[in-house]
Amino acid sequence: MTATAQRTDQNTLVEALINIAGEQDVVTGRVAMYAYGYDATLLFGVPRAVVFPESTQEVVDIVNYCRSAGVNIVPRGAGTNESGGTIPVDNCIIMNCCRMKKVLEVDLDNYVAIIEPGVVNYDIQEMLAKYGYYYPPDPASYKASTMGGNVGECSGGPKCFKYGVTRDYIYGMEFVTSDGKVRWVGGRDFCSEPFYDITRMMCGSEGTLGYMTKFAIRIEPIPAAKRTMLAFYNEPVDAAQSVADIVAAGIVPTTLEMMDNLIINTAEDATGAGLPRDAGAMLIIEVDGPAYGDLDDQVKTITSVVEKAKPKQFKIATTAAEVDACWLARRVAIGSVAHRAPSYSMQDITVPRSEFPQAVAGIVKTSKDFDLDIGILAHAGDGNFHPLVLFDQRNKEQSERVHKAEAALVKMALDLGGTMSGEHGVGLLKKPLLTSEYEPVTMGAFRKIKRAFDPINRMNPTKIFDL
Amino acid sequence: MTATAQRTDQNTLVEALINIAGEQDVVTGRVAMYAYGYDATLLFGVPRAVVFPESTQEVVDIVNYCRSAGVNIVPRGAGTNESGGTIPVDNCIIMNCCRMKKVLEVDLDNYVAIIEPGVVNYDIQEMLAKYGYYYPPDPASYKASTMGGNVGECSGGPKCFKYGVTRDYIYGMEFVTSDGKVRWVGGRDFCSEPFYDITRMMCGSEGTLGYMTKFAIRIEPIPAAKRTMLAFYNEPVDAAQSVADIVAAGIVPTTLEMMDNLIINTAEDATGAGLPRDAGAMLIIEVDGPAYGDLDDQVKTITSVVEKAKPKQFKIATTAAEVDACWLARRVAIGSVAHRAPSYSMQDITVPRSEFPQAVAGIVKTSKDFDLDIGILAHAGDGNFHPLVLFDQRNKEQSERVHKAEAALVKMALDLGGTMSGEHGVGLLKKPLLTSEYEPVTMGAFRKIKRAFDPINRMNPTKIFDL
Repeated sequence: MTATAQRTDQNTLVEALINIAGEQDVVTGRVAMYAYGYDATLLFGVPRAVVFPESTQEVVDIVNYCRSAGVNIVPRGAGTNESGGTIPVDNCIIMNCCRMKKVLEVDLDNYVAIIEPGVVNYDIQEMLAKYGYYYPPDPASYKASTMGGNVGECSGGPKCFKYGVTRDYIYGMEFVTSDGKVRWVGGRDFCSEPFYDITRMMCGSEGTLGYMTKFAIRIEPIPAAKRTMLAFYNEPVDAAQSVADIVAAGIVPTTLEMMDNLIINTAEDATGAGLPRDAGAMLIIEVDGPAYGDLDDQVKTITSVVEKAKPKQFKIATTAAEVDACWLARRVAIGSVAHRAPSYSMQDITVPRSEFPQAVAGIVKTSKDFDLDIGILAHAGDGNFHPLVLFDQRNKEQSERVHKAEAALVKMALDLGGTMSGEHGVGLLKKPLLTSEYEPVTMGAFRKIKRAFDPINRMNPTKIFDL
Repeated sequence: MTATAQRTDQNTLVEALINIAGEQDVVTGRVAMYAYGYDATLLFGVPRAVVFPESTQEVVDIVNYCRSAGVNIVPRGAGTNESGGTIPVDNCIIMNCCRMKKVLEVDLDNYVAIIEPGVVNYDIQEMLAKYGYYYPPDPASYKASTMGGNVGECSGGPKCFKYGVTRDYIYGMEFVTSDGKVRWVGGRDFCSEPFYDITRMMCGSEGTLGYMTKFAIRIEPIPAAKRTMLAFYNEPVDAAQSVADIVAAGIVPTTLEMMDNLIINTAEDATGAGLPRDAGAMLIIEVDGPAYGDLDDQVKTITSVVEKAKPKQFKIATTAAEVDACWLARRVAIGSVAHRAPSYSMQDITVPRSEFPQAVAGIVKTSKDFDLDIGILAHAGDGNFHPLVLFDQRNKEQSERVHKAEAALVKMALDLGGTMSGEHGVGLLKKPLLTSEYEPVTMGAFRKIKRAFDPINRMNPTKIFDL
């Protein structure tokens, strides 16, 4: 590539980064460059260096240096993202937020905490639990993923049917744009965005508009009570019917997680928890709220609704251990498919709630049409599916079938009035699919935003769309 | 003004508008031009014409014509806005959404309705109530105000402590930018904004980015039960204490509305509802939810919390008529001050919840410092105050004191960590104050957005900030 010739010399680059961040915060080893080349997709790239800024000022200095040196910046947290948002691009450094992990303030009176982007979601939960508070969004990756990554991807998670996604819990933030300027948008203590809501626009922007350095997050008291139920069905479509009926009964569960026979079996392989291997689908149903009395009424309603679908088994967890057992299967689900196939491709399609049963049928059909194992995981309350297509990346013919199946799944979702991306972002993985969802004129509006904030196209370039 | 010489001739302008929208949808009479020159502030301007487009295509044609003719476009709904957003600017037409008022679709399964911007908030409520559904945000103006105005200003209202503001209920929208392009952003059936959240950015943009022509709004089942309580206190600070204590007890009421002695009296003048004229403050407290049992527990807790503040009176409404009586005073509050003074200036300051009692004390002090009657209305759960400064606009000396008092109120809110604008927008009224809240670098970010969407500065120019 001709661009290579114009690149800043590697020694000059590394020396500049070390001058700014210190030797301990700059990594350039060959193995490390491979380690930071992956995320949770099958994509790969190699950065020129990884830098771990420890303050907003260091971020500003790195951004200013990269601008003058013509080096691209790719942001990264724990790298658990599912669409290639943190994959290195040409001539880039990785800017990793993991060493900016201070909790700067916890203000229980105003339900707010001020934190740095490297704080791990789970660590916030642990810290807040001491006070009886929590931060509602908890993506499946929450034990590892950073808040910088959560905000960058606008993560959802099993609770978002009732509680919303990351975007709903960010009061304000500080970020650094490619011109080296530091901006605070939104409120510090409460939601304050009297006109253009830049805060929420930054959520989900995958680092393409600026590098986020501080967040004011909304925290809440832990609900006083919850009830967890587990239902196993003969067929996925029966589980889908229960989902529709529960919502139609006016109940908004905290969680409505669905897993099909394939995932039940891989999860059982991994945990030995005693899940019935012949079940066609399982549903984890959780409700929470201020009072046991009201929840018991909801449990009664849910029980009678589920019974209508003639489940193989239905149980209400009565101990904390039983609740944990319900969740264990879900938490290991994605990793557990590694026992079955060396590679998987995960989609993130979402359909209107009323189309949920049709989407289940569509995934089953896609599996047959392309002769591929597809496991179904779904945040059913949101109509958000994560079909896991299992395959062997080394098998070219099979890999081609996988790509066709992916396209078929996305088309099916769009035909049902849905979207290709519920909560995993666009990154590189879904970039080729964007134009099937958005008209050129809307894509033009997105480009206007990118150009306004990053006219030199230095921040995570080529992600989501090309300028 | 020299600009006048370059203006399109009035006859040419009117003829062009009539060609597009039809004679019945173009108004140019002298009296009408005055009628459309006001909003709910004391500001005033005169448009060149008022046009009522009846379709997105007509909007496009008008926008295209205005671009070529160099005429500015000011959007307007019912004109109940409180910060000058719809006040005519130099060389402008008013584009009024009131005749685009179709409900295009109601999809109960997916909790969504597709509507045009001229639909009145109250009319949606009436229509949805037949199905047992509602649209949660209901600003005080809801009997008159249009959804176009609600979205443009990102209206709040008495329920937003629990249910959020307009921005939280818009899944997607169609809008026309000054280049004449029609864009749909966001979802049609559910929240879908996988990367840049333009939908929410449009909410509260006061028509400065584009003219909105369609909304997908989130609707919800009406909560099964609610309980309404009314407390009268000796002093405003006692009411403020109850607010803090109710929230500290972990209860999130639907409504926590506060009115002080002045407003109690003007409301009583207007309604004769039997409010105690010697009370220092009143609080309307409403909780809602799925079950009576749980609400009764909440009512018990609220009762004991309120009793601690030694109220003069506390009652729990037991009939629908009693509930209506509680609300009547609040609904007439703003209008009712007209009995006391010919003019009022209403602020929209918001403080962190923990600073609520300090803000009440600050408003009382401001009233004394400037020797002005200031009535306090507050959405107390959000820390959002609408102090009403009563005066006579014709009295120059008094008017000057009012301006000083306004500035003192805003400074007080900012000093307490708050904002000058909770839910009424910025418009022209708060434009001079913006720089005291936002640093130049943040103002720069807002300007980038405006330039990206309206580079020719044709859509409601000079509002919020100057380009």
